[in-house]
Amino acid sequence: MVEAVQELQTQLADVNPLREGLEDVHTPDPATVVIFGITGDLAARKLGPALYNLAADGFLPTPFTIVGVGRRDWSDDQLRGEMRKNVEKFSRTAINETVWKSFSESLFYSKVAFDNVDDYKKLAGRLDELDKSRDTRGNRLFYMAIPPDLYSEVAAHLGSAELNKSKGYTRIIVEKPFGIDLDTARTLNADLRKVYQENQIYRIDHYLGKETVQNILVFRFANSIFEPLWNRRYIDHVQIAVAETVGVGTRGGYYDSSGAMRDIIQNHVMQVLTLVAMEPPIAWDADDIRDEKVKVLRSIRPIKPSEADQYSVRAQYSAGSVAGEGVKGYLETDEVAPNSTTETYVAFKLLIDNWRWADVPFYLRTGKALPKRATEISIEFKRPPAQLFREYTEGLDSNRLILRIQPDEGITLRFDAKIPGQAEKLRDVNMDFRYGTSFGVPTPEAYERLILDAMLGDSKLFARDDEVETAWALMTNFLKGWAQHGTAKLPQYSAGTWGPKEADDWIARDGRQWRRI
Amino acid sequence: MVEAVQELQTQLADVNPLREGLEDVHTPDPATVVIFGITGDLAARKLGPALYNLAADGFLPTPFTIVGVGRRDWSDDQLRGEMRKNVEKFSRTAINETVWKSFSESLFYSKVAFDNVDDYKKLAGRLDELDKSRDTRGNRLFYMAIPPDLYSEVAAHLGSAELNKSKGYTRIIVEKPFGIDLDTARTLNADLRKVYQENQIYRIDHYLGKETVQNILVFRFANSIFEPLWNRRYIDHVQIAVAETVGVGTRGGYYDSSGAMRDIIQNHVMQVLTLVAMEPPIAWDADDIRDEKVKVLRSIRPIKPSEADQYSVRAQYSAGSVAGEGVKGYLETDEVAPNSTTETYVAFKLLIDNWRWADVPFYLRTGKALPKRATEISIEFKRPPAQLFREYTEGLDSNRLILRIQPDEGITLRFDAKIPGQAEKLRDVNMDFRYGTSFGVPTPEAYERLILDAMLGDSKLFARDDEVETAWALMTNFLKGWAQHGTAKLPQYSAGTWGPKEADDWIARDGRQWRRI
Repeated sequence: MVEAVQELQTQLADVNPLREGLEDVHTPDPATVVIFGITGDLAARKLGPALYNLAADGFLPTPFTIVGVGRRDWSDDQLRGEMRKNVEKFSRTAINETVWKSFSESLFYSKVAFDNVDDYKKLAGRLDELDKSRDTRGNRLFYMAIPPDLYSEVAAHLGSAELNKSKGYTRIIVEKPFGIDLDTARTLNADLRKVYQENQIYRIDHYLGKETVQNILVFRFANSIFEPLWNRRYIDHVQIAVAETVGVGTRGGYYDSSGAMRDIIQNHVMQVLTLVAMEPPIAWDADDIRDEKVKVLRSIRPIKPSEADQYSVRAQYSAGSVAGEGVKGYLETDEVAPNSTTETYVAFKLLIDNWRWADVPFYLRTGKALPKRATEISIEFKRPPAQLFREYTEGLDSNRLILRIQPDEGITLRFDAKIPGQAEKLRDVNMDFRYGTSFGVPTPEAYERLILDAMLGDSKLFARDDEVETAWALMTNFLKGWAQHGTAKLPQYSAGTWGPKEADDWIARDGRQWRRI
Repeated sequence: MVEAVQELQTQLADVNPLREGLEDVHTPDPATVVIFGITGDLAARKLGPALYNLAADGFLPTPFTIVGVGRRDWSDDQLRGEMRKNVEKFSRTAINETVWKSFSESLFYSKVAFDNVDDYKKLAGRLDELDKSRDTRGNRLFYMAIPPDLYSEVAAHLGSAELNKSKGYTRIIVEKPFGIDLDTARTLNADLRKVYQENQIYRIDHYLGKETVQNILVFRFANSIFEPLWNRRYIDHVQIAVAETVGVGTRGGYYDSSGAMRDIIQNHVMQVLTLVAMEPPIAWDADDIRDEKVKVLRSIRPIKPSEADQYSVRAQYSAGSVAGEGVKGYLETDEVAPNSTTETYVAFKLLIDNWRWADVPFYLRTGKALPKRATEISIEFKRPPAQLFREYTEGLDSNRLILRIQPDEGITLRFDAKIPGQAEKLRDVNMDFRYGTSFGVPTPEAYERLILDAMLGDSKLFARDDEVETAWALMTNFLKGWAQHGTAKLPQYSAGTWGPKEADDWIARDGRQWRRI
C-alpha cells in the first residue's frame, strides 16, 4: 500500500514535475546517483564536489546513495578516500566533518567492465540491495561521465540489465559532446531512445547551469523595459563571444578531432543564442521553454555547404604569447597533425528569419589563445532615428547592452551622456550591475544546479533531442563546406591576439566590427 | 569700417546664435555685464564666484567688464575687495592670483538709487565710457539680482535711459520669482516687453543650468534605447520630487508670502517636468526646444479651482527633528503668521492629455524639513504584460528608472534578476551610473553655464514668456482653489518625516505610493 502510494506520487511528479518543483527548492525524493566514470577527471573535478556541496547545503534527500562505477579495482573505502581528496581540492567550500561523515557513508563503488553484460547484472543486483538496505525507493539517476564513444554501448547494456526502469524513477544524464555531426547525433539519440523515453534523458550543457545564463530569461521576461527593445526595430545586431586564453595544451589529440565549432559553438553558444532570441514561453517549464528554443533554431536560415565561407571564418593560432607566457603554435602542438585543418578560432554569422529578428545578424565567435578569458553577449542597438545631437556625437558608439556570462558576471548598459562643462559634448558612459557584489549569497557551481534539477525531474536546463539535432543540422552544413577546402591551410593568428585579420575584414564588410571585450 | 563689420557680425550672431555657438564652447564677444544688486546675497554667493570661475576657465572674452550696481556708497576698490572675499568664500575653485588680477581690474562699481532717473543716465554715461576705454563694443548683459518688486521699475528706467539698446547686443537676465501668479507674471512680462524684445529677455531658472537637468534631453534623445519606452504604453506614472531638509529658518517672512508651490514647483519642477515629457524637438536650439516645452504645458489638463483638493495635498511641518537637530514648527517660526496657510509641503497630480502621456499621472512633490535632501525623477514602468515569473516575484517592485538631479547625481535602473542559488527566486537589483565618478572633469555651477549662455545669446536654458505664463495659468487655479479654504489649518507633518499622512493616503487612492527617496 505504501509502495503503491509512492509509485503514484512518482508518476504524478513525472507528469508535471516543474510546476511543483519550482516555487522554491524542494528536496528531491530519496534516490541513488550512479556515476559511470567515477575514476575519471569530470567526476573528480566537478561531480564529486558538486554532490558534496549539495549535501552541505542540505539539498540532498535522506536517504541518499552514490554508486561510483568504473573499470578499476576500487573498494568502497578507496572511493571514499579518493572522493575526499577531490572534494578537498576542487570544492568551492571547505569540508565540514559532520556533513562529510554522512556523505561518505553514502558512497559505494561498483566495478564494471563497460562491455561485460554480466557486470551490469551484478550492478543491478547491488543497486537493488542498496535500495533495500538504504530505502532509496528505486529512484535512480545514471550519470554518463565516460568517453562519448561509450554512451551507446553502456546505454544498451543498461537496457539489457533492465537498469532503464525501476519501481521509482530512472533517469540518465548524458555528458557532452553529443555527437560530432548531425548523423552521429541522430544515431546517439536513436540508441538512447531504444532504451529510454525522451523524458528520462538529460543531455547536459553546463553552460545552462550558470547563473548568468539562467538570468538571461529572467532579465528578458521578468522585466518590462527590455523586451520592448528586443527586436529588429531597435537592435542592429547581436554578438556572442566565448574567448579563451588557454591554448589546447596537452589535449591536442582530443582537440584536433573536435575544434572550436564542436567544442564551443554547437553546444554552449547555440544554447545561449536560443535564450537570447527566443519568444516568451507560455509557462516557465521545460517543454514550453524548449519548444521556443527549437523554434529559434528552426528559424535560423540554413546555409548551403557552398556558402560556408560567406557565413564563417576559421583560423588557427600560431606561436605567440598570452599574458606574458609563450605559446606554441597550434600546428606545432603535440598530437596535432602538422597539416591539421581543425580550427581554434571560428566566427559565424547567423540570420534568424522570423518576425522578431529578420535582418538582425547574430555574430558568434570563439577562440583559443586570445588575450582575455570572457563569455559575453552584446546587444548592439541601432542609432537614434533622428540625430538631434549629430554634431556632438562624432565617433560615439551606439547603445549597447552587455550580458557578461563569465568571469566578472554582470550586466552593462552603455549609453551617451553629456560631459559636464560648458560645451555640449557627449560621451559613452556605462551603467553597471555586478552579479557578484549585488547578492550576499554564494553562487553554486553549474553542476550542482543541474544534478539537483535532474533529481527533481526538471529538464528545463537540459537539451532536448530536437534541439540537439536542429543545432547539428545547421552546423553540419558548415562542416561540409569547410571540408571542400581539403588540406588548404587555415588563416593564422598569433597567440595572444584577437583572432585573424580575416575575421576583422569579414565583419567589416557588413559595416560592423567586433566588440572589444 | 571695422565697426560696421563688427556690427554686422553681431547682428548675424543674433539671427542664428545657436547653430553657431553650440558645436563647441565659443568665447563670447567682448562685453560688459551689469549686475543690479551687486551688494546683495545672490551676487555675493553665486554671481561673483560664477564669473570668477568663468574667467579662471578661460571662457570670458578679452576685453571684459563687470559693472556692479547698488544703492550703497561703494568705490570700485571696495567692490573688488568685497568680491575677493566672496570668491574666497563661495567659489568652487581657489583663487589664482594671475586670474584674479585681470578679473579684479575688470570690476567697477556704480551707485544707482533704483528710482532715480538721473542715476540711470549717469550709469549710461559710465557704460559708454567703459565701452570706449575697454573696447567692449557696446555688448551689454544686465543682470537683475534685485528684489522682484523692483524688476518693472528698473526695467522702465533702463528704457528711459536708453540702456535697452546699444551698438552691440543688450540683454537682460531676470531672476526668479517671476510673478506670484498668472496676473503678476503677465504684468511683469508686459512691463519688460515695453522696454525689450522677447529675445533680449533671459528668465533664469538655475535648475536648467544643472548638468543633470541638461542631461535629461541628452539621455532621452541621444540614445536609442530609452525613447521607445518613454510613453504610456510602458510607463505607469512619473514622480518628480524635490526634498529639502532645511526648514524656513530665518526666512519666515519671505517664505510665508510664497510657499512650496511658488518656491519650487511652479518654476523648477515644472521645468523638469517639461524636459521629461516633451516630444523630440526638431533641432537643438532655443525656440525649437521651448516650443516643445510649451506644448507639454499646454497639454496638461487644466483643473478648476474647485478640483484643487482632488489634485493636490498641502501641509506644514510641525515641530520635530531633522538629522538629530530640533526644528521649530512652521507656525511657530519668526515672521510667520500664527494662522498661516502657506504650505511647506505640497504634492500635485498632473495629467498630460496627449498621445504620449494620456492616463500616465505625473506626481510632483516638494517639502521642507524632510529627512533627506534630494531632487529626483522616477519613471515607474508598468509590470510585464505576462507574469511568467508570477510565483517568484511576490512583492517585487516594477521596473524603475531614476534620474538623480542632486545630490549624488546619476541614473539608476532598477530591474529584477535571479538570486544566485538553486531556487528560482528573483530580486530587484540596481544598475547604476554616477555622474560624479564617471567623468574626470569638474562640474561647473549652474550660474556659470547660464551667464555664459546669455553672453553667447543662447536662450535654450532660459524660460520664454509663454512658458512662464502657461505654467502660472495652471498653478493659479490651484491657488484659487486653496484660497477657498480661508484660514482652515493645513495638515501637519512632523519635521523630519516624509510629509503628511494625507499625502500618503491621497496617492494610495490611485493604487500607488511615494517612492522612498
